[in-house]
Amino acid sequence: MESRSEIRVRYAESDQMGVAYHANYLVWCEVGRTDLIRQLGMTYAEMERRGVLLAVADAQLRYHASARYDDLVRIVTRLTGVRSRMVKFEYELFRVAEDGGADERLATASTTLVSIDRAGKPTAIPPEMRTMLEAAMSPVAAA
Amino acid sequence: MESRSEIRVRYAESDQMGVAYHANYLVWCEVGRTDLIRQLGMTYAEMERRGVLLAVADAQLRYHASARYDDLVRIVTRLTGVRSRMVKFEYELFRVAEDGGADERLATASTTLVSIDRAGKPTAIPPEMRTMLEAAMSPVAAA
Amino acid sequence: MESRSEIRVRYAESDQMGVAYHANYLVWCEVGRTDLIRQLGMTYAEMERRGVLLAVADAQLRYHASARYDDLVRIVTRLTGVRSRMVKFEYELFRVAEDGGADERLATASTTLVSIDRAGKPTAIPPEMRTMLEAAMSPVAAA
Amino acid sequence: MESRSEIRVRYAESDQMGVAYHANYLVWCEVGRTDLIRQLGMTYAEMERRGVLLAVADAQLRYHASARYDDLVRIVTRLTGVRSRMVKFEYELFRVAEDGGADERLATASTTLVSIDRAGKPTAIPPEMRTMLEAAMSPVAAA
Repeated sequence: MESRSEIRVRYAESDQMGVAYHANYLVWCEVGRTDLIRQLGMTYAEMERRGVLLAVADAQLRYHASARYDDLVRIVTRLTGVRSRMVKFEYELFRVAEDGGADERLATASTTLVSIDRAGKPTAIPPEMRTMLEAAMSPVAAA
Repeated sequence: MESRSEIRVRYAESDQMGVAYHANYLVWCEVGRTDLIRQLGMTYAEMERRGVLLAVADAQLRYHASARYDDLVRIVTRLTGVRSRMVKFEYELFRVAEDGGADERLATASTTLVSIDRAGKPTAIPPEMRTMLEAAMSPVAAA
Repeated sequence: MESRSEIRVRYAESDQMGVAYHANYLVWCEVGRTDLIRQLGMTYAEMERRGVLLAVADAQLRYHASARYDDLVRIVTRLTGVRSRMVKFEYELFRVAEDGGADERLATASTTLVSIDRAGKPTAIPPEMRTMLEAAMSPVAAA
Repeated sequence: MESRSEIRVRYAESDQMGVAYHANYLVWCEVGRTDLIRQLGMTYAEMERRGVLLAVADAQLRYHASARYDDLVRIVTRLTGVRSRMVKFEYELFRVAEDGGADERLATASTTLVSIDRAGKPTAIPPEMRTMLEAAMSPVAAA
């Protein structure tokens, strides 16, 4: 399973190089993650209310081309790993060609998240949640 | 009483106009507020742990000149109003002339904050805290 | 004329009070502004390429209720003032009731922008642009 | 050579998990990078004015512990690679123990930047700049 999210680059996200500042890609990846989880029939907001928090433990980003203000960006998110206390997501970000041409790949990324409780202690993902996540697993993409 | 804070404009805070994005000034005002409260002998982090949260209810900003990446910005913060559930702060922001010239005024701002509890309900500022805040009051500046 | 934009509150926009950090509302207002200008048949990105930049000179925000992570927020934007070098926008922000109830008003805001050239000097809005903006004027809302 | 920068975690940087949002670490790494370059006797702002821009091509972050609002964070930055069109920086981030205890390692990171011109085309780092950067090289740290 994969989810597709679209965001439009905000002026606040541009920097003086005239492109979207690189840290924003991590924010956009989280938009993708939120959407993928929603697609599974739960919401991350709800997961947190039940006491399961996912903290980012590792992030890797490769930038291929620059997004610019007002660009439409598509985030393709895949769940590529689930373990008792860990989930891994992979992302591809594209500039959507609004004039009908070919989309351009902007970046690839992956994040590993660990399941923690409100006190910040690593904790197992509840079984029913884990089952749901495992069912959504994608084969590993070449990131 | 007034506090003086200094921050250096970050690349992430610049936008494609080549200046610091205007919403960052609100973030810098909060840096000033945090420092003024620290100067009173408490910390806002501690206030929150005791269950007193200050939520921004009103913000007004006037921009006079643009801050740029790597500029040194001084935030002068004054506490200009205290009531049972309300505190008001006023700010002046300057570009510090690092070559020894005259500082340049970048912006003036004010924010009104209301005291709420963890559930988000308006609540009175605890008496000992209110006394401390009142002692720090500045005469109203012409903002 | 008014434009309606919708954004979903991002995790990055939440703060430790559990609500959307107040400075983000200025970013969302800019999303509204960008959409209103697009609706007029131009884009702000294009305006900038032609050398007309709009710099925020004044911003006023009143916060009524808190937006939270994953809330759907609607930004209603109106153009309420146009002068030779100045445009004024007013905004109302609402939490969209996704379960079919009534929307809740989160904030009202206004921003005044001045037209500058690439060098940062105040410059008149080009006549054909001004005509377009004036045609889009709304009667002043009670902000 | 290594540079040491200190920042205090801002309220705006906290998220509803009660910790500093993970994307901010990339912003702090850039603060470290800016300081290291300043220490070499130039400024990145100046480099850009001369037409040499450094765009992030790759970023890797490993999070060990969480930074919190009002924590003092030290960023230790090292330059670990210089090639004709490429520079690599490595970072270690620590929570400074303000009560005199031991500092705690929060994260390690690395970023690879490519040298581009204003048009976004890869371009060689000017020789005198490259010499300066090479002189500042650190042996590769175990990140």
